[in-house]
Amino acid sequence: MSAGNPGVTAILQMICPDRPGLVRELSGWVAANGGNIVHADHHSDQGAGLFLSRIEWQLAGFGLPREAIGPTAQALAERLDGQFQVTFSDDRPPVALFVSKQDHGLLDLLWRTRTGELPMRVPLVISNHPNLGPVAEEFGAHFECVPIDASNREAAEARHLELLADHGIELVVLAKYMQVLTPSFLAAFDPPDAFHRVINIHHSFLPAFQGAQPYHRAWERGVKLIGATAHYVTEELDGGPIIAQSTVPVGHRDEVGDLIRKGRDTERLALARAVRLHLKRQVMVYRGRTAVFD
Amino acid sequence: MSAGNPGVTAILQMICPDRPGLVRELSGWVAANGGNIVHADHHSDQGAGLFLSRIEWQLAGFGLPREAIGPTAQALAERLDGQFQVTFSDDRPPVALFVSKQDHGLLDLLWRTRTGELPMRVPLVISNHPNLGPVAEEFGAHFECVPIDASNREAAEARHLELLADHGIELVVLAKYMQVLTPSFLAAFDPPDAFHRVINIHHSFLPAFQGAQPYHRAWERGVKLIGATAHYVTEELDGGPIIAQSTVPVGHRDEVGDLIRKGRDTERLALARAVRLHLKRQVMVYRGRTAVFD
Amino acid sequence: MSAGNPGVTAILQMICPDRPGLVRELSGWVAANGGNIVHADHHSDQGAGLFLSRIEWQLAGFGLPREAIGPTAQALAERLDGQFQVTFSDDRPPVALFVSKQDHGLLDLLWRTRTGELPMRVPLVISNHPNLGPVAEEFGAHFECVPIDASNREAAEARHLELLADHGIELVVLAKYMQVLTPSFLAAFDPPDAFHRVINIHHSFLPAFQGAQPYHRAWERGVKLIGATAHYVTEELDGGPIIAQSTVPVGHRDEVGDLIRKGRDTERLALARAVRLHLKRQVMVYRGRTAVFD
Amino acid sequence: MSAGNPGVTAILQMICPDRPGLVRELSGWVAANGGNIVHADHHSDQGAGLFLSRIEWQLAGFGLPREAIGPTAQALAERLDGQFQVTFSDDRPPVALFVSKQDHGLLDLLWRTRTGELPMRVPLVISNHPNLGPVAEEFGAHFECVPIDASNREAAEARHLELLADHGIELVVLAKYMQVLTPSFLAAFDPPDAFHRVINIHHSFLPAFQGAQPYHRAWERGVKLIGATAHYVTEELDGGPIIAQSTVPVGHRDEVGDLIRKGRDTERLALARAVRLHLKRQVMVYRGRTAVFD
Repeated sequence: MSAGNPGVTAILQMICPDRPGLVRELSGWVAANGGNIVHADHHSDQGAGLFLSRIEWQLAGFGLPREAIGPTAQALAERLDGQFQVTFSDDRPPVALFVSKQDHGLLDLLWRTRTGELPMRVPLVISNHPNLGPVAEEFGAHFECVPIDASNREAAEARHLELLADHGIELVVLAKYMQVLTPSFLAAFDPPDAFHRVINIHHSFLPAFQGAQPYHRAWERGVKLIGATAHYVTEELDGGPIIAQSTVPVGHRDEVGDLIRKGRDTERLALARAVRLHLKRQVMVYRGRTAVFD
Repeated sequence: MSAGNPGVTAILQMICPDRPGLVRELSGWVAANGGNIVHADHHSDQGAGLFLSRIEWQLAGFGLPREAIGPTAQALAERLDGQFQVTFSDDRPPVALFVSKQDHGLLDLLWRTRTGELPMRVPLVISNHPNLGPVAEEFGAHFECVPIDASNREAAEARHLELLADHGIELVVLAKYMQVLTPSFLAAFDPPDAFHRVINIHHSFLPAFQGAQPYHRAWERGVKLIGATAHYVTEELDGGPIIAQSTVPVGHRDEVGDLIRKGRDTERLALARAVRLHLKRQVMVYRGRTAVFD
Repeated sequence: MSAGNPGVTAILQMICPDRPGLVRELSGWVAANGGNIVHADHHSDQGAGLFLSRIEWQLAGFGLPREAIGPTAQALAERLDGQFQVTFSDDRPPVALFVSKQDHGLLDLLWRTRTGELPMRVPLVISNHPNLGPVAEEFGAHFECVPIDASNREAAEARHLELLADHGIELVVLAKYMQVLTPSFLAAFDPPDAFHRVINIHHSFLPAFQGAQPYHRAWERGVKLIGATAHYVTEELDGGPIIAQSTVPVGHRDEVGDLIRKGRDTERLALARAVRLHLKRQVMVYRGRTAVFD
Repeated sequence: MSAGNPGVTAILQMICPDRPGLVRELSGWVAANGGNIVHADHHSDQGAGLFLSRIEWQLAGFGLPREAIGPTAQALAERLDGQFQVTFSDDRPPVALFVSKQDHGLLDLLWRTRTGELPMRVPLVISNHPNLGPVAEEFGAHFECVPIDASNREAAEARHLELLADHGIELVVLAKYMQVLTPSFLAAFDPPDAFHRVINIHHSFLPAFQGAQPYHRAWERGVKLIGATAHYVTEELDGGPIIAQSTVPVGHRDEVGDLIRKGRDTERLALARAVRLHLKRQVMVYRGRTAVFD
């Protein structure tokens, strides 16, 4: 019927300077330990002289114990002057969702987590408004309302970092969180590195309509399609590496309220796709952009 | 099998201040003359207090002779304080295509004209380069190369206007014409009015990547979709009312050259759709935007 | 900003034999009572000689009291030898959802109802399995599990009809209900008429993969896109008038499980679109097909 | 700006029984000869125990002379019990286009060939009608009209095979050729093997509307989208491995003629995509389906 189930797999992501022989080197490392590769994806960016790789192999029969794979890959990465990450297909990393008042992003991610579509746990939901607490708690997450404004941003973000640390959070998803994260928050939670860990959904097909009220501005401009963009967060507002974009047609009968309604669907699809790609370790960042190995 | 062929039809487009009774007024005017309506579309923009209407009815059996319909509608428009246009489904208005060096927009429009998909004639092709002359002439169009640069723009556009007048051109389509039309050209050929007559194709999903080299900038930004926008030309660069937009997915393997290649298809589709909508009189402009009755 | 809010509106849908003057007749009927039309859509099917119309006008200022509009339209319909329906934009008709074990269709419709995106109430959820009871009840619906198999189909459907009558249900939506409705059920709840009232979602782009296990068969066939079809239910399995279809790309890496996962999103979008179109009275049936006035 | 130009590349496609170590084996073979891999794609079908691979590396600096790569890969394939193909990015294989009366498929492929979008030559166009001869000849192809009917099918196909042999044709594309190829033709030109060489475009989203008049049947069924499917031809009518599919929305205003018109665009896109994927050696067949490495 189908291609079969490979069981638990290990995933190695590596980004390093490009040179001949890297595919052999990486696949050879897996094969030398008896691993059976189920997916191998690579991308050479010749302009930047960079090589990106994602290799996934069956853990069953692999010569190294699970806990030794990371340290061994570390030695490989040093030899290649690269950055790497080792994960496993049965990982369920703890993820925090940041929200404001709107519930559609939150509900959608929680539902998809419950169905198993998103391989993660959601122990923590943070909001600057109290209204979504019951939803978060119904799905077993700790909810904390941290009101935020110009006067208390520093203290609020300190509380955020404390909560993230307490719950061992590995990924933050801004699921319609209507606040900007400061550079100091990002420096603390997501220091510059090949592997990002804050995802945002913006309700336009970036770079169109960066900033506030994109649907209103889309209506004013009279566009025939609206969209959504899921991206990693960087210091540049709405300027981080794009993971997924989607669009939906609109017409002259659509009011701003219709754009918002139609946009909710396309936002949910783009965000869910981005979070899943991240969790499946299918997205890698280079030069302010992403390679998506799906 | 299908809904049948209504024969030749007349089309009345009207834009006027909104008030109760307009649908009855317009449909009543048709019915009073024995016309059988095959399509009737209306849009009320309550924010601006505007009413837009497009009514299409069978000429067979209509009480007014073809040449009397326009003048009679004129009286109706005056009563409604509106702007109007009367056309017929068997019209084949003369259209001029403006091109630069790239042939895909030109070829696509000429081929669609030949198949009957676009109800128009193309007696005139104008370019600032000589290379597409043979293509234009093969399809029976007069081709004229009018080189243009900062020093001769005024003279060049005077020549354009002369050619447009000589051929009785009703619509200009910029099919990858890499020059900007000046306000004085627009004032002469397309004076401000409800019915525009210059269409351009821009190779991005506007308002993203206005101006030059959108594909290069799209590559730099790392977007996951590229697009094309067909719009009426106004004095504001890439700012006129949008008629049609389309997008196509791109990925990390796509170089700038791939974006250009993929973009050609989406440009052709958006432009052909816009020109067809215009010629079928299915697009109407209000408040810097379009209603599309398709 | 936008086109403004017309307040509560009345909607007249009419299907009758085509003849000249019908647009005037219907719009004249509204205008004669002082109504201001906000939407008017018509379709003539010349092959069948049928005329379909949907007119929506502001209730404020209309000369007839709300409860007199239907009876007055009845007289109009008789004169036109047509079938008609009068509804109001603030109606929230009671809708029953039929489900089996899968929750995504149910949750999606309940959430969209709660946000106001679907103008309906859901007083009743019926399933042949008990597992979704808590979900239904959380959203305030009465849940009843009516197990069904070959031996008790008649009794089960009798119970269905009883429940539908008890709750005054006007529309049934099969939101992944994995049972076939019998002709006698349809004859009782949805007798042949221009206005249908049972909607189903099928997980393929019909007519491909009618019947059971469409995703497995799609995988076997190696298609590059999968889809979903929302349609009115008739006696012919998966053969009723199509309201909405959507597709999503798939590739060689997608297993059957991935098709099911991706399909859930496209199913939800097609079904939500169809239910909304129905409730906005934007869909009309003729010749086994639909006109969609959106 | 972009990822750079790798110069001429060699491409190895291999399909063989799956076992651990294959990625290392293939990449090692390239690396051992000093090759720098620019793309490496693999797919394991665990259900069938098959491994598919496509590796592309720079010819510059590679240790084997161009003409020795195929024979050397042959030895590798034998060791792996696989089927293989070696090609080069500067190949321009001779392709024959089969057409009937419609010109859009033919013109589109010829234009794309001329722009360099399709890396092929078209020395031969075969039709069962004479009308497209001038088009073919304008683009430098030999045109031959081979009328075909039930009485002369065997002789006609013998002539086809003769022409294909005379022009050294490597790929046949049926660009709206309204005749069925017989099993004996296929056995002669495209014997069963991992690498197919006849591509057809069917004007529906298969498996919907197999066989004749799909647009008419789509209209009758009232579908809300139509589509096109490009596939390899096998003995089973419209049943071969699907390479590319695309769809386009349709509505109640679209007559059969509109479906045909809209379908031309989607047919062209699906066919051009499939032919390009084939020529870029990005499509591989297994189990009656394709892996597409794009």
